[in-house]
Amino acid sequence: PERSWGEVLEAASEAKKLGEDDPRRIVHSFKVGLALTLVSLFYYCRPLYDGFGVDAMWAVLTVIVVFEFSVGATLGKGINMMLATLLAVALAVGVHHISTLWGGEVGEPILIAFFVFVVAASVTFMRFFPALKARYDYGMLIFILTFCLVSVSGYRETQVLDMAHKRLSTIAIGSCTPIMVCICICPVWIGVDLHNLVAGNMEKLGDFMEGFGFEYFDIKENGLSLSDNQYFLQQYKSVLSSKSLEETMANLARWEPGHGGFKFGHPWQKYLNVGSQTRQCAYKIEALNTYLNTDIQVPTEIRSKIQEPCIDICTESGKALKELAAALKKMIRSSSADSHIACSKAAVESLKLSLKRGIWKDANLLETIPSAAVASLLIEVVACVEKIAEAVHE
Amino acid sequence: PERSWGEVLEAASEAKKLGEDDPRRIVHSFKVGLALTLVSLFYYCRPLYDGFGVDAMWAVLTVIVVFEFSVGATLGKGINMMLATLLAVALAVGVHHISTLWGGEVGEPILIAFFVFVVAASVTFMRFFPALKARYDYGMLIFILTFCLVSVSGYRETQVLDMAHKRLSTIAIGSCTPIMVCICICPVWIGVDLHNLVAGNMEKLGDFMEGFGFEYFDIKENGLSLSDNQYFLQQYKSVLSSKSLEETMANLARWEPGHGGFKFGHPWQKYLNVGSQTRQCAYKIEALNTYLNTDIQVPTEIRSKIQEPCIDICTESGKALKELAAALKKMIRSSSADSHIACSKAAVESLKLSLKRGIWKDANLLETIPSAAVASLLIEVVACVEKIAEAVHE
Repeated sequence: PERSWGEVLEAASEAKKLGEDDPRRIVHSFKVGLALTLVSLFYYCRPLYDGFGVDAMWAVLTVIVVFEFSVGATLGKGINMMLATLLAVALAVGVHHISTLWGGEVGEPILIAFFVFVVAASVTFMRFFPALKARYDYGMLIFILTFCLVSVSGYRETQVLDMAHKRLSTIAIGSCTPIMVCICICPVWIGVDLHNLVAGNMEKLGDFMEGFGFEYFDIKENGLSLSDNQYFLQQYKSVLSSKSLEETMANLARWEPGHGGFKFGHPWQKYLNVGSQTRQCAYKIEALNTYLNTDIQVPTEIRSKIQEPCIDICTESGKALKELAAALKKMIRSSSADSHIACSKAAVESLKLSLKRGIWKDANLLETIPSAAVASLLIEVVACVEKIAEAVHE
Repeated sequence: PERSWGEVLEAASEAKKLGEDDPRRIVHSFKVGLALTLVSLFYYCRPLYDGFGVDAMWAVLTVIVVFEFSVGATLGKGINMMLATLLAVALAVGVHHISTLWGGEVGEPILIAFFVFVVAASVTFMRFFPALKARYDYGMLIFILTFCLVSVSGYRETQVLDMAHKRLSTIAIGSCTPIMVCICICPVWIGVDLHNLVAGNMEKLGDFMEGFGFEYFDIKENGLSLSDNQYFLQQYKSVLSSKSLEETMANLARWEPGHGGFKFGHPWQKYLNVGSQTRQCAYKIEALNTYLNTDIQVPTEIRSKIQEPCIDICTESGKALKELAAALKKMIRSSSADSHIACSKAAVESLKLSLKRGIWKDANLLETIPSAAVASLLIEVVACVEKIAEAVHE
């Protein structure tokens, strides 16, 4: 019992942490509860229940499957749900009509079964199309579901049109309730999240670059201990695998109406472009990072020869990245980022100059290799930062 | 009309391509159709329909939402569905009992609404726990759904126990049908897919390494044109962003029973380890790749001084990666991979030796930098390949 008590405490503290990390999660939970309580009024109120009967169940079901954390996802699912139901009900009523007309007593179930098989198989195959899957995957699932249910149960029902009508209206109510609750009470805009994610990723890279120069040349200042730096230097790792997350978010953001500084039809695809340039830069940084923890130790006198321009490159490109992130966040064109980029390019030139002068002439070539690689990577990073700046300015 | 005809043709050719790329997609579509036709027998056969009535709808609904492309996903969803329904129905019957006992005419709907709100909000919050989300996200959704439907409609039904019993049996039938169809007819094991994906990724890196040496030192042989090589040299890009895909697949693979050479409880997590080492290597390769298309052209005489050991490193590490991939595929311990790694390490030593001798003493230092960086990265790649080999041998 003591062990299970410990587990309960652990779960509770994890729950507290989840809530503190993002309080919108708690709000979301209450919103789901509220939406469900709202639609279950269909059962409690006698006049409403008389209108829909057991079909009210569809409204409850729809609320639960449609309600998602962000407005974009909820809208996407809700609209998919309503469109798919409309199309499927129309097709199913048509199929019902044909099979009662042509089938006769024996033929009807066979005809229905045939249509169900064909529609289910072909729509299932359509779900593999990447372009359709990205936006309408959920709708296609609901299409199969509604089509099958309406056409199959039409075999036992006489009032197919009445059933279709009830189904449509309950699904519409069930889709609109969560959309309303989701938008009206503390909305979570996934577009804003994407905006912040892309800017935050750039900031993480900026933190790394600023920290890297001092860390690589063993400069301790501002009383920063190594462990503080270590934290900054690890942050960028999440950028490496951000691709699929960004793509999902951009897909969902397209469903959102205008909000805050974003209009409907905001160019979310451009964020993917910025994101992929940021990732390119993160790959270079991953390569740089190995030289922090490499086994081959470079003598300090070799490193110190390129110290000045390299630290300039790191600080300036780090500042440029942070300025670009800030500019993206505020959606303005930042001139100070441009000047930081210019500074870092000047530092690159001075690095190249000192390399040309042959600073390592007398050193063991093998020992200069890691420093040479770092210098080369830093030059690459500056090129990357320029590309990011271009992408941001678009 | 001509344009829309063109679009239809385009869609048809895309469909053909999708089917040719992976014929299992076509089989999957037919399997879904078959499973649906099987469960709709509940409607067509009078004795079956008399037993379940409109509740047969739940079986159809379950088949559609549970049936997934791979056995792992279908089993995961099916088991989640059945467990969640069982728990939810039990809880809902309890709540129904309490609220009829304590509530009275006015209090009953209020009590039910209160319970629905609390359960929906708390389970929605539980869905944010990463550990629960990975395996039981779907089950928690179904739990909320079933609990709400049974307890809310219990307000209007008198025979709650009968309803609960019917719900449970239809869901069980609806879950078992797709699981059976999925396993018995041309099963798609996601574990095998993961196995092949991880091995395939290593092979792609191997292809790159083998091609890189010749490409970088401008050696054309075997009549390979540049465009052929370009294809090989781009393949590795997909490895960079394979993290989330691999994690999802490993999560789903855990549901699968033993099949082929894999036992139930096969250490799928180890594949993630191999995958992440492979990705580390891919990041280095991404850095190498920039030196293929860089603007700074290195004079041939500088490059040619390190040509021999570098090409050795590339070919040997490429071969080692391919051997490791083949060994992983066949699940054997390959000794030839070890010997290729030993060869590449020997090449690294000879590269280091020639660097120590100071081969570029007279050259412009700036011009040697890219070659130095390539040499340094190649040394890193060999270290990565060793780590991959360790992970594979586990």
